[in-house]
Amino acid sequence: MVKIITIARGMGSGGRTIGKMLSEELGYKYYDKDLIRLASEESGISEAFFGRVDEKIKTSFIKRNGIYKGGVIDPSSREFTSDKNLFNFQAKIIKQLADKEPAVIVGRCADYILQDRTDVLRLFIYCDKETAVRNVIEAYGNDEKEAARLVEKTDKDRSFYYKYYTGRDWQNAMNYNICLDTSRLDYATCVRIIRGYIDIVSE
Amino acid sequence: MVKIITIARGMGSGGRTIGKMLSEELGYKYYDKDLIRLASEESGISEAFFGRVDEKIKTSFIKRNGIYKGGVIDPSSREFTSDKNLFNFQAKIIKQLADKEPAVIVGRCADYILQDRTDVLRLFIYCDKETAVRNVIEAYGNDEKEAARLVEKTDKDRSFYYKYYTGRDWQNAMNYNICLDTSRLDYATCVRIIRGYIDIVSE
Repeated sequence: MVKIITIARGMGSGGRTIGKMLSEELGYKYYDKDLIRLASEESGISEAFFGRVDEKIKTSFIKRNGIYKGGVIDPSSREFTSDKNLFNFQAKIIKQLADKEPAVIVGRCADYILQDRTDVLRLFIYCDKETAVRNVIEAYGNDEKEAARLVEKTDKDRSFYYKYYTGRDWQNAMNYNICLDTSRLDYATCVRIIRGYIDIVSE
Repeated sequence: MVKIITIARGMGSGGRTIGKMLSEELGYKYYDKDLIRLASEESGISEAFFGRVDEKIKTSFIKRNGIYKGGVIDPSSREFTSDKNLFNFQAKIIKQLADKEPAVIVGRCADYILQDRTDVLRLFIYCDKETAVRNVIEAYGNDEKEAARLVEKTDKDRSFYYKYYTGRDWQNAMNYNICLDTSRLDYATCVRIIRGYIDIVSE
């Protein structure tokens, strides 16, 4: 039985759209930026502050302080107490949401946070650079150079965020149950493939 | 249209069995060790010699000769001419086989070798360590410690071989169209999921 679907996704891959479509078809809750808002409201810390650290960690700061060593995070690093607290708080919220009702959760290392559950389908949605750039141009109207830079930067930030909090490589298939390249598929087709998987394992 | 299916697979994940099942159901040719035999016969070099370098490269030798630097292979390295020739020869054979008729090709960096074709479905089949060890014990009758060592060593060799010839990370999802974790699925179910994908993209 698949109760929770976590989605890690490359910029421009359609992962967010696919997550939204899945949640609608399955009648599952959908959490993305809403999650930050929820966490923010409950904790009373302003969303702006959450927004600032969300999936972005200043590399230079980390390197300067020597905290990030070969992907292993030293939990005792005092310099990082506040960011770590923030992550732990979001992790707590994600666990509570997963306990409550079926949900699709996009980003935020949810696959890692919920790794002890057996009812989680962990997806990684990605595409080739060319497709990602084309999708970003279509969605946001950037020119090609801007779009390429945005894809590269966003994926780099996500990869770094994931590595920092989980110690794992974001694009490594082993973290996920299915990884799906959307380069040659439309989103409805992706949803059908994933639903096909869910139906089969739920038999 | 999917004419060629390439399968990269973790030791004990069932990737080979799934490949065999797919080839039988779809009426595609199946190539695995046979490929080496074919290559060997055509070239006249003994199979034993092919067998020795196949998916195993002596790390110490490479390190000693300073050829392997950050995953980039220097094609001019004289020390490696013979292994490189061997790989190039196998690559040529794989391309010829793919041109000839529909086929499932397991291992041998076939995904990378055939990357310019648009009719290739590139699969990565894997599972968690626990499942891999259990499968190896069942298949070969090793004790648990031996099986764990075999899984670890084989995957390390495959990863190294892939990195050496492609410059890419073997477990990185971006190399493949679908990555499938078999830990919680039987092989027939995996075949159904993959065939579901093939049917949908072939519509």
